[in-house]
Amino acid sequence: MIHVYTGNGKGKTTAALGLALRSLGRGRRVALLQFLKLRETGEVRGLAEFKNCTIQQFGRENFITEETADELDRQLAEEGCSRAEEILRDKAADLVILDEINVVLHLKLIELERVIDLIAACPPEIELVLTGRDCPQEIISLADYVSEIKEIKHPYRKGIIAREGIEF
Amino acid sequence: MIHVYTGNGKGKTTAALGLALRSLGRGRRVALLQFLKLRETGEVRGLAEFKNCTIQQFGRENFITEETADELDRQLAEEGCSRAEEILRDKAADLVILDEINVVLHLKLIELERVIDLIAACPPEIELVLTGRDCPQEIISLADYVSEIKEIKHPYRKGIIAREGIEF
Repeated sequence: MIHVYTGNGKGKTTAALGLALRSLGRGRRVALLQFLKLRETGEVRGLAEFKNCTIQQFGRENFITEETADELDRQLAEEGCSRAEEILRDKAADLVILDEINVVLHLKLIELERVIDLIAACPPEIELVLTGRDCPQEIISLADYVSEIKEIKHPYRKGIIAREGIEF
Repeated sequence: MIHVYTGNGKGKTTAALGLALRSLGRGRRVALLQFLKLRETGEVRGLAEFKNCTIQQFGRENFITEETADELDRQLAEEGCSRAEEILRDKAADLVILDEINVVLHLKLIELERVIDLIAACPPEIELVLTGRDCPQEIISLADYVSEIKEIKHPYRKGIIAREGIEF
């Protein structure tokens, strides 16, 4: 089944991580593919405890915008999609997370068609999770689960920056 | 800081679990107090891998409603609150999750004042997470992070029941 966590609030990647934990607790195999990120976060360290979990990051250290995105960013995004394709084809995981893939689309680093093809290629026994704000309507139409996480309050509005163990 | 995950969509407990994983990955101590639940779920099994995590459930196997709730349910809810109080007082964890506490309030198993007191008793260095739909406005006012998870699509609408490793 296809899961989407979108919206402007805190909890999209976090919910996908919770799903990973739940699946790992059931002995399932999890593949976490993180786009736009290259960082040894708390979640990466936590998931590393589980032998059934593989994590790959297809990003760079810097935060990118539509204006600063370049060929390397497009190449990394394409690599992530190819890897997802392989995992789905080989049924190498039971839960596959494409973390921040919606932002990759929003930044126009890959074509929407590329992600629609991944969804179409997902075998019915595999759970495919897509996260990131601004999920395109075409993907929402294809998904089974869609949760929109709305920010009601967040301390960064008060100038508090991202904190270790909470935001990363 | 005080975190709230509320709303009618999938991902509230799941996001709190992701936060637990992230904190555990940073070597922090996590206490998961689950209200209204008594079940060896995937998340319980997954978190059991971490020595820094304690899990306690204050519920029963059956699903309860405002009509069926009885003295035992009130007693279990009170036990959970007392345990939370102890953990906060002794600073026995860095992240404390009161899972489904908002539903406990909605079912009138404890007084709102009891939870407001817990929030007031939370030392600034501890992260306190409250989950469950129908979070009272009084708690939202006191929280630092509030995410509302809205259901856009969920397969139970098509009659698909909760699945192991995904919903529990």
